[in-house]
Amino acid sequence: MTGHTLPRAAILTIGDELLKGERVDTNSAWLARHLTRSGFRVTEVVSVGDPPEEIRHGLREARAVVGEGGLVVATGGLGPTLDDRTRDAVAEEFGRELVEDPELLAELEARFRSRGFDALPTPNRRVARVPEGARLLPNREGTAPGLVLEEAGIMVVLLPGVPAEMRHLVEGPFREVLEERFQGRGGAGVPVVRSIRTTGIPESALAERIEDLLSDTGAVNLASLPSVLGVELVVSATGPDAQRSVEEMMDTLLRRLEPWVYDAPSGDLAEAVLLRMRASGWTVAMAESCTAGLVSKRLTDHPGASEVFLGGVVAYSNTAKEALLGVPEALLREHGAVSAEVARAMARGACRRFGADAAVGITGIAGPGGGSETKPVGTVAIWTVTPHGETGGVERFPGGREEIRARAAQHALHGLLQVASNPWARDG
Amino acid sequence: MTGHTLPRAAILTIGDELLKGERVDTNSAWLARHLTRSGFRVTEVVSVGDPPEEIRHGLREARAVVGEGGLVVATGGLGPTLDDRTRDAVAEEFGRELVEDPELLAELEARFRSRGFDALPTPNRRVARVPEGARLLPNREGTAPGLVLEEAGIMVVLLPGVPAEMRHLVEGPFREVLEERFQGRGGAGVPVVRSIRTTGIPESALAERIEDLLSDTGAVNLASLPSVLGVELVVSATGPDAQRSVEEMMDTLLRRLEPWVYDAPSGDLAEAVLLRMRASGWTVAMAESCTAGLVSKRLTDHPGASEVFLGGVVAYSNTAKEALLGVPEALLREHGAVSAEVARAMARGACRRFGADAAVGITGIAGPGGGSETKPVGTVAIWTVTPHGETGGVERFPGGREEIRARAAQHALHGLLQVASNPWARDG
Repeated sequence: MTGHTLPRAAILTIGDELLKGERVDTNSAWLARHLTRSGFRVTEVVSVGDPPEEIRHGLREARAVVGEGGLVVATGGLGPTLDDRTRDAVAEEFGRELVEDPELLAELEARFRSRGFDALPTPNRRVARVPEGARLLPNREGTAPGLVLEEAGIMVVLLPGVPAEMRHLVEGPFREVLEERFQGRGGAGVPVVRSIRTTGIPESALAERIEDLLSDTGAVNLASLPSVLGVELVVSATGPDAQRSVEEMMDTLLRRLEPWVYDAPSGDLAEAVLLRMRASGWTVAMAESCTAGLVSKRLTDHPGASEVFLGGVVAYSNTAKEALLGVPEALLREHGAVSAEVARAMARGACRRFGADAAVGITGIAGPGGGSETKPVGTVAIWTVTPHGETGGVERFPGGREEIRARAAQHALHGLLQVASNPWARDG
Repeated sequence: MTGHTLPRAAILTIGDELLKGERVDTNSAWLARHLTRSGFRVTEVVSVGDPPEEIRHGLREARAVVGEGGLVVATGGLGPTLDDRTRDAVAEEFGRELVEDPELLAELEARFRSRGFDALPTPNRRVARVPEGARLLPNREGTAPGLVLEEAGIMVVLLPGVPAEMRHLVEGPFREVLEERFQGRGGAGVPVVRSIRTTGIPESALAERIEDLLSDTGAVNLASLPSVLGVELVVSATGPDAQRSVEEMMDTLLRRLEPWVYDAPSGDLAEAVLLRMRASGWTVAMAESCTAGLVSKRLTDHPGASEVFLGGVVAYSNTAKEALLGVPEALLREHGAVSAEVARAMARGACRRFGADAAVGITGIAGPGGGSETKPVGTVAIWTVTPHGETGGVERFPGGREEIRARAAQHALHGLLQVASNPWARDG
């Protein structure tokens, strides 16, 4: 991977709740993504607690990591309560006074009057005290403005921790500051970033197919982000030819990886399936055993799923497979619950019972118990029925219970997408 | 909150994907919660990229923050690929050699042979090279073991970044190491830690009931960890009276919060329900509309669920509610799909179709569309049927689609647990 030297950025999130694990810190990932896409190389994310000495320590660490010309974005601790100590800590760290900003004070007073208060409550008055020389970023979503300071060639931006306020400030008032300071003359420019998502191909097999591209990406950066559900490839570049270079790389990747690529606004394969079903005018139902509702849950994670998804049966017991999906008892006896035959009967039963055009049957052994010599833990039979035909078989997935179920659900969704996309799928 | 000095811990997460915001770092919050619950004060969370110099920097920062007697938990970068550099970086930072562990190597070779490989692939052989003197934590969920090192009085633990593997190691093999080192004789405080989990009571209402305890906890620490699913209260103390003080506080909390408290080894309410059902000798089925399989999925997250859970119907469409659960069309017309009447008919239908002793019917509007003046987004009807009687009604949950569904699923499980625990529940 090659590429240009990007300005460095560090993210500092502030709040005791982050250190107790009371809240997953989603601000960091959002900011990291935003800054990466804005042409920064994010070099560190640090979370510290509310005590001023911890905030000061975090600030020193973040500034040291980015160095001169860098950017530090801090979130949290700007509210009116006594445990909001970011303003004080930053003022102290930079040896600046906290001064009441008369304009901000007037604005806060007007806001509280309009809400029926006689006067600004004392705690809220604290919000108007800002470090000397700080530039204010007006906050339409809340009371505390963002604050921008420059110190020793490093830009430090303080933002509220409430995600909606933070995002509004970053996408609005802060954008101008960023462009002015980093993307003007001398800056690296805004990078062009695109990504494609793949599923159903192991990372190693994928890497083999694009080995030459990975070892020499030319003018673009190529990053591979694997997970249990698949591999995402992120292509980025900066400079005058960025757009063309990225498009060329995307074309090459799509050509080589076509059977495994899917596209969905959310990045979730389940959404790609819903979109494909809607385009085909098909309805869909699920017959799940070992995944026990996971595929249904994933399909319905997306608003509007009800236009396509009619429902599903979680047939955990054999009796349920018989009673609710009409799987013949003889089939269960002859082939066992975990067999392509039973998965097929489940899928066909779901189509029939729900009156759906398409369905998937999933039956397997997620473990830790229930495995045998011929059908070890991880064995999952998956069968897909669509108006285009049927396809399916018995898979063996690695990992523990959770991973096996996640992989089986993903495999089922991928199968459905593939048969739906290909009218010449074999008949079952 | 008062209390004693707790040993300090820092969390270091490693991986370029975290700095690009391509993945939300859920490991940190999980670890922070776990360590807080285990009696540590987590003082900092740091995320760095894959380059060895960044890992080394992060390691130095984390060690500096916890100081002697502290704990550093690092995740990520232990896999077989070339961008997994944690082993190398740590060895270099501590001036130790990387040595091939013959036992680990033999184990890896055996694993790959059993998967049909002739030999261990070269990249995977890297996993067997560990820093001299490191203690290995066996990883049943993946190939890379956890590694424990002691350096200058600080314990450094390296764990894989895959959440399932990380959690398995922390809850299993690492627990013993922790107890031995921090909670035994000579440990940095010998804390006694207990926790209780509550659900179905908002954090503010809970805080009101224990206001006096929160303002003066006497000899113990009392931490409140809220989430969408409920509030966990962690009680800890050190010193000679720790055991007694903690027990007393636990008794008081249990007395005051009894209707909302549940108990399960995994901390998951779904497991508490399974245990209660098993104890009662009941089987259970689900009839889900808006939660669309989420309750079924949660129940089956736990091995052995099949002894109790027979299955469920995800009845997303009205037709499915009629065809698969026998909900009368007239009832749907008269009361609407989101009504206590329909939820009840769904639950009864599930009992009948699956031949189950107990069932819950859930039907609601998760949004963003589908709300109305009288039934806004967040309206969810939940009805529980058990041999002890029936109970249910219409709830209104805050939040977006995901949160509403998570809250509805939790509420359904809580209802089931409550009716099952109380033979005098009202008849519906």
